[in-house]
Amino acid sequence: MEPRTEISSLGEFGLIEHLTKNIELQNASSIVGVGDDAAVIDHFGKQTVITTDLLLEGVHFDLAYTPLKHLGYKSVIVNISDVYAMNATPTQITLSLGLSNRFSVEALDEFYEGVYAACEKYGVDLIGGDTASSLKGFVISVTAIGEVAPDKFVRRSTAQKGDLICCTGDLGGAYLGLAFLEREKKIFLESPQVKPDLEGEKYVIGRLLKPEARKDIIDFLGDAEILPTAMMDISDGLSSEILHICKQSNLGAVIYEEKIPIAEDTRNAAFKFELDPTACALSGGEDYELLFTISQNDYEKLLLNEQISVIGYMEEPEKGKKIITKGGNTFDITAQGWNAFR
Amino acid sequence: MEPRTEISSLGEFGLIEHLTKNIELQNASSIVGVGDDAAVIDHFGKQTVITTDLLLEGVHFDLAYTPLKHLGYKSVIVNISDVYAMNATPTQITLSLGLSNRFSVEALDEFYEGVYAACEKYGVDLIGGDTASSLKGFVISVTAIGEVAPDKFVRRSTAQKGDLICCTGDLGGAYLGLAFLEREKKIFLESPQVKPDLEGEKYVIGRLLKPEARKDIIDFLGDAEILPTAMMDISDGLSSEILHICKQSNLGAVIYEEKIPIAEDTRNAAFKFELDPTACALSGGEDYELLFTISQNDYEKLLLNEQISVIGYMEEPEKGKKIITKGGNTFDITAQGWNAFR
Repeated sequence: MEPRTEISSLGEFGLIEHLTKNIELQNASSIVGVGDDAAVIDHFGKQTVITTDLLLEGVHFDLAYTPLKHLGYKSVIVNISDVYAMNATPTQITLSLGLSNRFSVEALDEFYEGVYAACEKYGVDLIGGDTASSLKGFVISVTAIGEVAPDKFVRRSTAQKGDLICCTGDLGGAYLGLAFLEREKKIFLESPQVKPDLEGEKYVIGRLLKPEARKDIIDFLGDAEILPTAMMDISDGLSSEILHICKQSNLGAVIYEEKIPIAEDTRNAAFKFELDPTACALSGGEDYELLFTISQNDYEKLLLNEQISVIGYMEEPEKGKKIITKGGNTFDITAQGWNAFR
Repeated sequence: MEPRTEISSLGEFGLIEHLTKNIELQNASSIVGVGDDAAVIDHFGKQTVITTDLLLEGVHFDLAYTPLKHLGYKSVIVNISDVYAMNATPTQITLSLGLSNRFSVEALDEFYEGVYAACEKYGVDLIGGDTASSLKGFVISVTAIGEVAPDKFVRRSTAQKGDLICCTGDLGGAYLGLAFLEREKKIFLESPQVKPDLEGEKYVIGRLLKPEARKDIIDFLGDAEILPTAMMDISDGLSSEILHICKQSNLGAVIYEEKIPIAEDTRNAAFKFELDPTACALSGGEDYELLFTISQNDYEKLLLNEQISVIGYMEEPEKGKKIITKGGNTFDITAQGWNAFR
């Protein structure tokens, strides 16, 4: 019999590593390939970045509680967030859709309204794509292209020992928005007459359904003349992203629980679900904030921006990847978040 | 009740037009947007092209008779064919996959073997992508990027009256390859003990399962200093593509049945299915040949290349889009092919 290795045994990142480990770039113009938020291409001395995401119904979104306009908006945001995470400015996107006959033209128009709203807000052009019939489920594939000043792109692999670890906005909200919507969907399916109880959860639901990309931060860093030493966006949860930067930069890290920014509404939502807000920030995905490292020399310049929190620092690889709790205990940061607390 | 317009009522091209008619490009770098084989981006005076395709299991391919390695190869080819159709050279691709747990790592390796084989043959780098679980069906999204000398890209909309219409290679083969494989699949499902009878059909099956992109033609045109006035690849059948060039260039066209290149093996396969070989060339898709128009002044230069057939010429729009049969009759070219003959 042929050997059979389950994809799940490798995990998403293991799988990507397995499939791409033998790539040798052939074109001098391919500066950064697989393994970062986006690839970087040299165009005759100037540079562009490119990134792509695939969103599948039932896996990445549930049409039971996702308005199509929001879905269109978010499909653009998740991609251009990767462009900003390279310290670049998104300029164009392509959009491919697989559509089942369940969709009407009116439904599709609603989806595109969201796409165009995001394009307009972020100054991005929709320049191409593909439409196909799908036998089942809505398939969305977006590719985003951006510009970056020569050699100003920021990778994940270039953090230095002693650099400060910074994150933007606040974390964990999108995860709790998802928890609420999933709960209400379950209640609705069991008792359709019950009215949804989402009052007071607008903030976390908005974080899930209508995320924004942190253009403002990239603009600020440019204006303040801060070039992060490493950067990525936070799409899979803070823990997972810190581990990416540590692995790719071959360093350790220390972060402080008390420094992790969590909104008051997110904290309240977590308590309703009897969840630890810090665990939600570490392990919950889809916040689309930025995680970056800066030289300590740039610390003063950061203070002007309330949207940026310094949460820790990069360490020698031997020191591991640690989180220090409010109570002063130290735990390993794990990809699934803060397992020790579960 | 909300109005509901079925997507099928618009057709693929009607749908794209509907969804994209209000696009206003915001970035000066967006030179060509939706509506051609690929988009063109200006990078500080130099130009790149970008194109994307979505391939869905059960719609674009059937794993019952498509070896995964061939599918990986073809996924790259169909995209870079669009880059060549802009008169550009493909340099990079991104690849996103939606995978169900039916797939093993070994199966995926086979798919990537084909991807890498195509990348190597055409000098293209795989620089990024995304992997996602899919609840059902294999989803493949490829985006290709290419380079083109400034203002040497060739659109669909710039053919001139009197230009010669040329196509490369031979047509209709892939359609007949599909017909054979579908027939054998049906026989197999009804009587699994019957051995498949594909002897003698290697050519047409190869045309379907392992198409190539016409890099050689783009190289030849460059060497011969022929800049086509309009160009596209033939993915949906010759009729449909000629109508695209006519519509976008606002012209009519005349083609001659006897000039349409059809391989002997394709003719023989058509006869076995009691199909008209010309109808297969006009309406059958997936040949991935190039269709282009050239100024009459360039005719002499073409004669050196046996892979190029001159099949007709562009006319005033009032003259319509006509095919003249071997018997001397004239029919309208329709998107579904040569309906008058069916």
